[in-house]
Amino acid sequence: MSRVHDPSKQNAIDMDKARAAASINVVDVRNFLNDGAARWRKREKIVGILSTDPLFDKSKRPFQNRQQQFLRGESISNRLYELKEIHKWTQEDMTIALSVMDEGLAISFEPVIDLQATPDLLSKYSALVANKGILGCYLQTELGHGSNVNKLETTATYLPQTQEFEIHSPTLTSTKWWIGALGKTATHGVIQAKLILPGGKDMGPHLFLIQLRSLDTHKSLPGRIIGDIGPKAFGGWASTDNGFARFDHVRIPKENMLSKFAGVTDSGEYVTPPHAKMSFSGLLYFRSKMVTNAGWLIAKGATVSIRYATVRRQGEIGPDGLERQTISYPSLHARIIPLLARAYVYIELGRALTKRVDDLARGLSSGDMSQLAEMHVMTSGLKVLVSTTGIQDLETARRSMGGHGFSAFSGIGKLYADFVPAATYEGENFVLDQQVVRAALKTFRGLSSTKVPSLSITSLYLRHLLDKDSAPPSLDDQAWTQPTFAILLLEWRAAFLVQEIANTTSAPEPTAAHRASRAVTEAFVAGRVGELITGLDAALKPREAAVVRKVYLLFLLMTVESGLVDLFSFGLFPASRMQSRDATRGLRLAIAGLCKDLLPEAIGLSDAFGFTDWELDSALGAYDGKVYEALWAKAQQEPLNETDVTEAYQTSIRPLLLRGQKLAKAKL
Amino acid sequence: MSRVHDPSKQNAIDMDKARAAASINVVDVRNFLNDGAARWRKREKIVGILSTDPLFDKSKRPFQNRQQQFLRGESISNRLYELKEIHKWTQEDMTIALSVMDEGLAISFEPVIDLQATPDLLSKYSALVANKGILGCYLQTELGHGSNVNKLETTATYLPQTQEFEIHSPTLTSTKWWIGALGKTATHGVIQAKLILPGGKDMGPHLFLIQLRSLDTHKSLPGRIIGDIGPKAFGGWASTDNGFARFDHVRIPKENMLSKFAGVTDSGEYVTPPHAKMSFSGLLYFRSKMVTNAGWLIAKGATVSIRYATVRRQGEIGPDGLERQTISYPSLHARIIPLLARAYVYIELGRALTKRVDDLARGLSSGDMSQLAEMHVMTSGLKVLVSTTGIQDLETARRSMGGHGFSAFSGIGKLYADFVPAATYEGENFVLDQQVVRAALKTFRGLSSTKVPSLSITSLYLRHLLDKDSAPPSLDDQAWTQPTFAILLLEWRAAFLVQEIANTTSAPEPTAAHRASRAVTEAFVAGRVGELITGLDAALKPREAAVVRKVYLLFLLMTVESGLVDLFSFGLFPASRMQSRDATRGLRLAIAGLCKDLLPEAIGLSDAFGFTDWELDSALGAYDGKVYEALWAKAQQEPLNETDVTEAYQTSIRPLLLRGQKLAKAKL
Repeated sequence: MSRVHDPSKQNAIDMDKARAAASINVVDVRNFLNDGAARWRKREKIVGILSTDPLFDKSKRPFQNRQQQFLRGESISNRLYELKEIHKWTQEDMTIALSVMDEGLAISFEPVIDLQATPDLLSKYSALVANKGILGCYLQTELGHGSNVNKLETTATYLPQTQEFEIHSPTLTSTKWWIGALGKTATHGVIQAKLILPGGKDMGPHLFLIQLRSLDTHKSLPGRIIGDIGPKAFGGWASTDNGFARFDHVRIPKENMLSKFAGVTDSGEYVTPPHAKMSFSGLLYFRSKMVTNAGWLIAKGATVSIRYATVRRQGEIGPDGLERQTISYPSLHARIIPLLARAYVYIELGRALTKRVDDLARGLSSGDMSQLAEMHVMTSGLKVLVSTTGIQDLETARRSMGGHGFSAFSGIGKLYADFVPAATYEGENFVLDQQVVRAALKTFRGLSSTKVPSLSITSLYLRHLLDKDSAPPSLDDQAWTQPTFAILLLEWRAAFLVQEIANTTSAPEPTAAHRASRAVTEAFVAGRVGELITGLDAALKPREAAVVRKVYLLFLLMTVESGLVDLFSFGLFPASRMQSRDATRGLRLAIAGLCKDLLPEAIGLSDAFGFTDWELDSALGAYDGKVYEALWAKAQQEPLNETDVTEAYQTSIRPLLLRGQKLAKAKL
Repeated sequence: MSRVHDPSKQNAIDMDKARAAASINVVDVRNFLNDGAARWRKREKIVGILSTDPLFDKSKRPFQNRQQQFLRGESISNRLYELKEIHKWTQEDMTIALSVMDEGLAISFEPVIDLQATPDLLSKYSALVANKGILGCYLQTELGHGSNVNKLETTATYLPQTQEFEIHSPTLTSTKWWIGALGKTATHGVIQAKLILPGGKDMGPHLFLIQLRSLDTHKSLPGRIIGDIGPKAFGGWASTDNGFARFDHVRIPKENMLSKFAGVTDSGEYVTPPHAKMSFSGLLYFRSKMVTNAGWLIAKGATVSIRYATVRRQGEIGPDGLERQTISYPSLHARIIPLLARAYVYIELGRALTKRVDDLARGLSSGDMSQLAEMHVMTSGLKVLVSTTGIQDLETARRSMGGHGFSAFSGIGKLYADFVPAATYEGENFVLDQQVVRAALKTFRGLSSTKVPSLSITSLYLRHLLDKDSAPPSLDDQAWTQPTFAILLLEWRAAFLVQEIANTTSAPEPTAAHRASRAVTEAFVAGRVGELITGLDAALKPREAAVVRKVYLLFLLMTVESGLVDLFSFGLFPASRMQSRDATRGLRLAIAGLCKDLLPEAIGLSDAFGFTDWELDSALGAYDGKVYEALWAKAQQEPLNETDVTEAYQTSIRPLLLRGQKLAKAKL
């Protein structure tokens, strides 16, 4: 049958051609995305070590049940620290190693102990915490209580006679729940509990260090009922033992209170040390990292879907006599090239934010907290934005691959399952929206007395309302080639939405907070993308800078498109000059044009993320394009295929067939 | 601790109160949704049988791996047919039994054999097929080929010497893939293969019946390599053995060609019988059912999320001194009351469509196929609409529940995982969009010669372009209380979008087909909802009719809201009369007002779906509201909790701790 055209042989040819077509220098862009050549080499070396270690093999994972995945996760955690010792990894190396793992590992103790423990407690525990001599967890959420910490029910009652706190769970709903690593792993925890003073006064939530399990036997200590809360939706976070704990009058020594900022005296009086100052910088740092991480996740979705669309041929016959590559259809590439844009922006934006947070933290000594508080709120908005769009983008990538996207072997389902809780953890998105809007309204109401230069970077969009001569930009033929035009539109939209809520005397309509929060965040992001564009010439050679500039511009236009309802509603987007013709056509064609321009660069731009096949773990995203060989090979490993005849035959299928044959015979 | 307020005790109180607050007669609405009291009683009786049968117990399912879920599915299939015999279930009863199962069961042979087999073949197989004396599957999709059947590679070469067909898979990519029940269950299959005549002429895809496995041993027969394709994303369809098959020159008798519409003579000439007429009614029927099914799925999401939001208290303190019920927050109920609206509409719309398909099929004898073809296209649009919105709604329901929504015990994750492939199977949504638009353009281009009365129900929206005096409706104070206003807006939007594509001489922008397809489908749906509203007075008593009318109106306004970009873009939605004020505020307040009006009815309207706790299988959707007891009870069954100390302790945790303690000591 050698005359038969074999599509699976065509795959590698198509991939090679696409790779050759890119005009950019992939290495240059790869170093750009990876924060420089030196850091890329570190990543490459670490990925090399991990991907060849049998313990980090992923080929059996799709077939493992939850317990098996949990056991695998625990052995990976142990092995990572073993490798750290063997290879003398620095803390930065370890951060890289953890960042390339696609497992929820139960080993990251919250930094809360470092931030809030007294020097005495730190001297006792910090080396153990840092080296995993004890394994910690952070017990905040309760079965009946999420983000509203003031309503937590767990109590920590101070007993002056013995100088102890008694930790207690008075109700079923006070059971600590969802706590990462609590179920089976953690030996210790930092627990949020209401401090009750002698006499019964409730001082609200405070933090305490509590031992959970014996360091000799790992058995849970008396008075603690501890367990795993069960599987998560979509099979997400399967290797993590999110747990529950109930406490029955458990006593801990007084010194275990994390009392850097508040404590009790021996006799039981509440004290706040002088100069107590909470630091937001931990959370800020975490959230700026979240932007980068979302970028890398979307990058995986983009890489896999672009590679598969490059080798998948379907539908019309093209000039080469074969079915067209699906990436050549505008209705398809207009969906996946935008993922590339979002990934590039979030990776670079997150990195810029992390640097900004570092600067802010350093500048803290001057005592100016205002910027820090505003950045804190802005990162709430960013958390909402990157989780919402990242979740969407992963699902867009999966669906763009048609039927095979629903195979576990596409790899995208797992990424989605592990990322989707980002929409509801660490502050539910709809709750965070309210915070962003509250802060924006506060700034807006202070506007009359504000001079433009004193607006912080997060509120800069409000400057348009201050200048009486300022007017929204008007659309002309060059509009969509100019980043500034999109940025201005997005800023005006944010300003008008905030003004609308401020000017509404009755209750705002229910979606107002969400719309305004998104607009304010997107105005901020657009401004930062403008800065990224300005910085391109310094960061890349001219050809690469020109291509990445298009990627960034695409991001801005996509953002305008997603905000069209608001832009129209506030008169910022002009109706069509022609009656009953599509006013959005120009914008949409500009987006389509950028996607088309970027099409020959798509494989190069996604190769530049630098993912190995081990990192992607996707049959459809195989670097060499041999997707059908990969799908076939993976299916052969399905445990159901170990025998030709399933064990269900004797128990179920045979009885069904025999009954059916009997009934059929009776009817003849 | 009896003085402590126990929130978990409050749950049942809150649920009882909410149930008492509904003004509607739940039984009346339940019968309405269930197609009458008689059919409801049938469902109730069948659910009673299934839910008390130990084999249908769901409590272990969240902890089962894929093989276990597959074995459970097979035993359920067998048991269902056993129960059918025991209880003398009719075909309708069996349909109800299958519809209340939330498992992908590998037992539904495609109706293709009934439709396309010759009488001879039917006499041999139809009783066996109907009684499960043989188990079938439908082998269309190949590893390298999806919806474009003309490019399938599998061949069926006619051999006149022996009067046989030789079925062969010439390449890796020709491997049949994704075929439901093929992996481990099916004994027979209907296969799509290119008919090759003697001399080599390729006649394109045709259908053949092929035996796959021995009826004595269930072993796969010689020349067939058969297996399961492996796990699916999100753990979806775990109990179904989607399979692959490769054929190595397998011979089947000539009579096995399904040749009702086309065949070969003994000597190998291609023949088309006179009066061959393909029937779309099978697919139409299937797709109209898909609308209803999506409605019932969304109904589950609505029921669970509304019940949980009724008993969950969080945030601000309300007038009763407790935290407010989360359903009382507009930002929350504005997300979940709309699910109720979509569920009601899809359930009733699907049922009306099924009746219409029955009528059309009956009217076929008159020879008029035009309506049938148009309805075929319209159901493509409906498939896209109900899958897209249904997937979204399930995820909205899940996220509305905050952190606990991510627990597998919320039940919604499984519904989503099983429903989400609907976006990509049976014709990828983006491919179907093109079909809808092609048909719409064809009708549009025939418009000049068309009289309004001859426009079919699926194209009625185009009448606005025919009447020179017709103009889009203008917004007034009463607009959002009138279903007609919303329906007209949606019809004009569809007409303008189709006209826009028709008038565009260059290539349409890439999202045009999707926008137009959605608009055309939503105009059709809106028209049908108008009919449903008109029919309410006959179907329900005045109070219930008034409430359900609001549910339907909410659906129409939601649809308008989701189409705002297009409405603005074509000048159908007026800009605000005030400069820089939100033009959409009136619409949004109208939606919020309806949601608020429906709030006291929400528990009643969702109880009216009639789901038992067994059907919902959700800790958060418990009928009695005792959600925290339910979560606690389910977590206790997690297999990781069988021992206090995990087996990972010896293998991984202990080595990690010991290494850490050694390192910490070294640092001190």
